[in-house]
Amino acid sequence: MHLFLYGPPGTGKSTLGKILSRSLKLPFIDLDRVIETNAGMSIPQIMEQQGEASFRDMETVALKSLTAEKENIVALGGGALLRDENRAFAESNGKVLLLMAELPTLLDRIQHEPGKRPLLAGDLKNKLVALLEKRKEHYASFPLQHHVDNKPAEQNAREAQIKLGRHHLSAMGEYDVVVDRAFSVTNLQNPIIVTDENVAKYHLEKIQDLFNAKAVVVPAGEEHKNLETISLLWKSFLENGLDRKSTVIALGGGVIGDMAGFAASTYMRGIDWIGIPTTLLSMVDASLGGKTGFDLPEGKNLIGSFHPPKLVMADPSLLLTLTDRELRSGMAEVVKHGIISDPDLFAMCQRGMDWVKANLEDVVKHAMAVKIKVIEEDPYERGFRAALNLGHTVGHAVELVSKFELRHGEAIAIGTAAEARYAARVGLTSQSTVEAIESTLEALGLPIHIPEEMPREKIIQAMRVDKKKNAKAIRFALPVEIGKVELVNVDDLESVLE
Amino acid sequence: MHLFLYGPPGTGKSTLGKILSRSLKLPFIDLDRVIETNAGMSIPQIMEQQGEASFRDMETVALKSLTAEKENIVALGGGALLRDENRAFAESNGKVLLLMAELPTLLDRIQHEPGKRPLLAGDLKNKLVALLEKRKEHYASFPLQHHVDNKPAEQNAREAQIKLGRHHLSAMGEYDVVVDRAFSVTNLQNPIIVTDENVAKYHLEKIQDLFNAKAVVVPAGEEHKNLETISLLWKSFLENGLDRKSTVIALGGGVIGDMAGFAASTYMRGIDWIGIPTTLLSMVDASLGGKTGFDLPEGKNLIGSFHPPKLVMADPSLLLTLTDRELRSGMAEVVKHGIISDPDLFAMCQRGMDWVKANLEDVVKHAMAVKIKVIEEDPYERGFRAALNLGHTVGHAVELVSKFELRHGEAIAIGTAAEARYAARVGLTSQSTVEAIESTLEALGLPIHIPEEMPREKIIQAMRVDKKKNAKAIRFALPVEIGKVELVNVDDLESVLE
Repeated sequence: MHLFLYGPPGTGKSTLGKILSRSLKLPFIDLDRVIETNAGMSIPQIMEQQGEASFRDMETVALKSLTAEKENIVALGGGALLRDENRAFAESNGKVLLLMAELPTLLDRIQHEPGKRPLLAGDLKNKLVALLEKRKEHYASFPLQHHVDNKPAEQNAREAQIKLGRHHLSAMGEYDVVVDRAFSVTNLQNPIIVTDENVAKYHLEKIQDLFNAKAVVVPAGEEHKNLETISLLWKSFLENGLDRKSTVIALGGGVIGDMAGFAASTYMRGIDWIGIPTTLLSMVDASLGGKTGFDLPEGKNLIGSFHPPKLVMADPSLLLTLTDRELRSGMAEVVKHGIISDPDLFAMCQRGMDWVKANLEDVVKHAMAVKIKVIEEDPYERGFRAALNLGHTVGHAVELVSKFELRHGEAIAIGTAAEARYAARVGLTSQSTVEAIESTLEALGLPIHIPEEMPREKIIQAMRVDKKKNAKAIRFALPVEIGKVELVNVDDLESVLE
Repeated sequence: MHLFLYGPPGTGKSTLGKILSRSLKLPFIDLDRVIETNAGMSIPQIMEQQGEASFRDMETVALKSLTAEKENIVALGGGALLRDENRAFAESNGKVLLLMAELPTLLDRIQHEPGKRPLLAGDLKNKLVALLEKRKEHYASFPLQHHVDNKPAEQNAREAQIKLGRHHLSAMGEYDVVVDRAFSVTNLQNPIIVTDENVAKYHLEKIQDLFNAKAVVVPAGEEHKNLETISLLWKSFLENGLDRKSTVIALGGGVIGDMAGFAASTYMRGIDWIGIPTTLLSMVDASLGGKTGFDLPEGKNLIGSFHPPKLVMADPSLLLTLTDRELRSGMAEVVKHGIISDPDLFAMCQRGMDWVKANLEDVVKHAMAVKIKVIEEDPYERGFRAALNLGHTVGHAVELVSKFELRHGEAIAIGTAAEARYAARVGLTSQSTVEAIESTLEALGLPIHIPEEMPREKIIQAMRVDKKKNAKAIRFALPVEIGKVELVNVDDLESVLE
């Protein structure tokens, strides 16, 4: 899957391409340079000596010389996809991101490189206006668009990555994150899918066909996230002849990812795994960050490892089989990510559940980007990664006391609202921020109040047990404004629940 | 524990100190520079204006200003330990390595730095001869000596590290290896010792006092290297309140190190551990390299992780409680290390068991250095680390078929000799190398022939099962000469045992 950057001259396709090449650790190809090398002359010379039609022929040849086996970031000439066959080739061999900018931006950039653009030679402005007008419908027809005006190149690159759904993580291991329809990965040795009974019903057959993989199906549910299931996985890896070069594919929610990742991290001292999350929660949160593990009777995730997957493949279409309640529950973490560092994402959430459902891929892309940013900054949770605990100190406790009658996301929504109200009481945030958080959670159909009948002292007790026993204060991640949280130590836990 | 470099002028103490500082990641202090900074003038000026006695006073002050909390590499002036109180301070706060060289070497080096050595001003050669004569007995009285003649500084530094018993590994995690009497490590949070019933009898009390640590004692023997014992360790870590900042201390042989290391690597996603090996085998081999794990009924070490300790503390005095058979068994791996890359170590082994027992610390230091060199080059066993398999392909199989009646080292000795004979048959090594290997193993009281009654076909079968099932050829590490092995794929396993 190549990543094509397309759009009118002056949108900065090459500049952006080079930045993306570094961030995504993929080679960069400037198609115009390939054409020039093939022809042994510059594009203005080709145009002058052989005419535009010949140039377009060369462009088709250069484009089709890209092999499907290797991925590249490809900057295309401003008219490279005018031909239907070119466009069909690009769209079936990769993703096309159309870059767009206002006329002054384009003019400003092009004026710095006179002579390089033969179609605009002479009266630049009028020619550009005419070209944009002529190609208006063409450019508008690409579904993935990005406007580059008035933003530094690095910001444009980051936003382009979100739109393309492509990231490369390197703070803990090296791995790619791809938001896209699930696709096959070549050269996997003896892959095996780990999934649970529920997920298997909906998705196993398709993914198994895609990877030509074996499968092991374990019982569903957090109550099976234990050593017994881990042992079963190890045993089945052995029975299926997995060796040090085999790959485990975790197909499921957070529980499956945690367990399959842990079993992979310890089988023959660690083998590769790929994560294919099937819940919104795991897609935007648990599948990223390399934490694996299982529960002991004494507590959650007590045994585990840091063992990131080699690839996280997030296919939003897999979420279509989720129940409404499951999807809403996942949105609690999305809202959290918005509060932590993405006001745009928060604004998306504010539009309510119907809008979210209609724009799920966009929501997923933004929410994953927040988590990726946080874990790349602090992979081993020594500092800022604790920001991800927003809503979780109260939330986990409420979840426990509800005996898991509340879904994780519902408990987190309650915790997020409660912690926001506490932040306002201690003067850390404004009442309007609290109202924004509460109304957004409600717009998504999520609860914001601790159930009346739930004993407050049990919640406080659960908060203490959840954290280190000997810690006097408990560290909360509290909202300051939408897009910013602060880590605060709190002694008096009762004041949090007031 | 500071590392002091001492000896006559011109032995290269500062040069060596700077290299060791880089290798061991410890600060370097040149004591003469400290004296000059304190005095605000150069040493020749101090000598001229205040006399040698004043200089010696300043030297004592500078020396004693070294705090015990921080370790340093310290280059001393050529007479810095003439005073008894200085020597006592240095020897009780660190290790002193005396550097020595022949007169021409010293003269050559000093002549390049005229004016810096006031005691030698004037007729350099005669003064130096007189100074060496005067201090002859003094210099000779230091137990740790190193001759620097005719060797590049890097080689001297490497040999100095072996003599000091100090290494810093960084290819997989960052950790120190120290060959010394066991010592306490400050600032450990809630340390817990993991040991077995046998080791506990001899060493637990002492080590527990040293670290002021809790302890968990597990049943001894490879048959307990299983998930049951690992679960017991996890449970006891929880009961003892270990958190993410606690440290596990593995006190025992390879089985204890593997299991305690694995339990530590997975408890709360990985906590620190320290290795204190108590067998020769684990000291020179298993404790180094970061491999941890346990056995499944289906095979050895099937579950595990790469999780190096934070420190390996090798105290040769702990080996004094080993039986003669255990010590001899451990020597098989030492011989192997000699064959792989240390002819000096091999020569030590040739001297037989009595010499080895009398020089155990030296043997340990050399053997550990070989393993460290190999694993630093290839931490994850993707290439040369496979050299450590010398003797093990046949050896493991013989061990298995003997149903562990043969000790690991005995089986490895048999395997090493058998593989050497095979290497000679295929023309890879000479008959004299084979004889050297066989006679050395015999001098250590180790067997070199597969027991007559052991069915050859069972050994071949065991070799195949030990390796990947689908592998056609098995890769052997075979001796070429003493100090050099080669990796060779072998199809016809029967020819190996001829």
